[in-house]
Amino acid sequence: MSEFELIQHYFTERQSSPSYIPLGIGDDCALMSARVGMQLAISSDMLVAGRHFFADANPRMLGHKSLAVNLSDLAAMGAEPRAFTLALALPEVQPDWLRDFSEGMFFLAEQHHCQLIGGDTTKGPLNICITVFGEVPIGQALRRDAAQAGDDIWVSGALGDARLALAGYLKQQALSEADHQQAALRLHQPSPRITLGLALRGIAHAAIDVSDGLIGDLGHILKRSQLGATLWCDSLPFGPILAQQNTALCREYALAGGDDYELCFTAPSAQRSAVLAAAKQADTVVTRIGYIEAEAGLRIVDANNQPLSLSHQSFDHFSS
Amino acid sequence: MSEFELIQHYFTERQSSPSYIPLGIGDDCALMSARVGMQLAISSDMLVAGRHFFADANPRMLGHKSLAVNLSDLAAMGAEPRAFTLALALPEVQPDWLRDFSEGMFFLAEQHHCQLIGGDTTKGPLNICITVFGEVPIGQALRRDAAQAGDDIWVSGALGDARLALAGYLKQQALSEADHQQAALRLHQPSPRITLGLALRGIAHAAIDVSDGLIGDLGHILKRSQLGATLWCDSLPFGPILAQQNTALCREYALAGGDDYELCFTAPSAQRSAVLAAAKQADTVVTRIGYIEAEAGLRIVDANNQPLSLSHQSFDHFSS
Repeated sequence: MSEFELIQHYFTERQSSPSYIPLGIGDDCALMSARVGMQLAISSDMLVAGRHFFADANPRMLGHKSLAVNLSDLAAMGAEPRAFTLALALPEVQPDWLRDFSEGMFFLAEQHHCQLIGGDTTKGPLNICITVFGEVPIGQALRRDAAQAGDDIWVSGALGDARLALAGYLKQQALSEADHQQAALRLHQPSPRITLGLALRGIAHAAIDVSDGLIGDLGHILKRSQLGATLWCDSLPFGPILAQQNTALCREYALAGGDDYELCFTAPSAQRSAVLAAAKQADTVVTRIGYIEAEAGLRIVDANNQPLSLSHQSFDHFSS
Repeated sequence: MSEFELIQHYFTERQSSPSYIPLGIGDDCALMSARVGMQLAISSDMLVAGRHFFADANPRMLGHKSLAVNLSDLAAMGAEPRAFTLALALPEVQPDWLRDFSEGMFFLAEQHHCQLIGGDTTKGPLNICITVFGEVPIGQALRRDAAQAGDDIWVSGALGDARLALAGYLKQQALSEADHQQAALRLHQPSPRITLGLALRGIAHAAIDVSDGLIGDLGHILKRSQLGATLWCDSLPFGPILAQQNTALCREYALAGGDDYELCFTAPSAQRSAVLAAAKQADTVVTRIGYIEAEAGLRIVDANNQPLSLSHQSFDHFSS
């Protein structure tokens, strides 16, 4: 099967054409319009075999996750998904792999009305690069630099089960088969918090998605907003499988585990009931885990207000 | 140097912020506006070491070429460059390599006022994925499906020197060092025909950039427009170094060589003087090389109207 036939077969034929995409796959460029009063939110993520996923990863889950991590960036801006491009390097053409990968990807894309509009396919070490496009009303994006002193800090869902699943694969932690499988769903099948991000427009100040670990990602908000924070480590929502482990491990994986793809956001304390209403509307649990303050730095304290000392840093793709 | 410091150092500090990019690098997404009456043209290309370039390629030239092949897609739509994202997988952090790569890329980006607005950096086999954004007035894009029977077929610049340079590297052709160096500039430093693409708005019908070889790329126009064509092989503008070789090789490399990044476009014969004026305005040579016709298929004839039989196909990334 030639490159063109391959693309045609797996990546074009299920496409419909919404009015804001007058030209999709098959030309030098796709053409896309933004509605009046809207800005485009744009993000690119590159996933590499052996780095972001195991080379023998289930292709259906990989297709899901590759798009999910990009949609998660849109969620963290309060942007509504519209379209994406896919560039794919493959060591060889395996029709079964491509079928499953594309099905996993399109199943999620269709849930969010996010249209594949173009991309590239080439031979090479397995590499998946997706660029995603969303819309957000001018001035309403949830930016990292918009936190304010006194804001509550919130996180959606639960943290740490993805890291626990990874620990299971790496034999760092002993897990029952059933527990490992359940935790692994959080690693392989993250749910981008699109609905929550949209519901938080006009309520939250700053937001980020938790991809590299809560401490590191919250750190980006603090740095860009030039503020500090206190986090309550006993308020963190541990994943249900992680919660069965000892407290030190729970804290470590929830604070620095990565791959959670939850939203960490800040909102004025006067908006607590609005935040809870938005979360209910989005059918997502949210937990208040600390507060923003003027003093620089991140302080993590337990329920007795004792400081926690953590040596762990957020995942850095070149330092490890 | 950590991932974040690396990105900061080489890929953010020279950025200015035009009004249509309210938020660039450093958040979950970049934010971008399109002017009223404009559509965004979007294209992604992925370049892989050992496939699109030699692993030891000069990083400055590679930085240039990685962006140039994307800008060439905008040129082929008649779109004006605005911004791009860069996702980069690197086997290791080499500051000299990154400095040279980013300099080559930014030199071209600044020539075309094309702003880096985001991306990703990760460890992995060398892979460069750029997504580029341009603007084109609604309805004025030069689409592949817009050719009409009776249109002239034109090509910009000269063809085949890039393929000749590759043949030199692969020892398929013997070349003097001076000739090889000059031809290699066409392989490593293609000039995206942005100015010509913009000048052809409202004049040309269909356009494509010649990346995989003239026959294959013109074939995309014919397929999408459901038309056929006749090409005059003795009218092809051979590159100056290629032109010193025998006629059979000149024809082969000009017709099926690839990597030329010239524009192949069609325009009504009534627009010949307008095409030439547009080319003059863009300071680019254009050559009329055939015509579009209703009968399907591509016929290549010599100056005596004798058909040329060619076994060569356009470059296909999986079939070779």
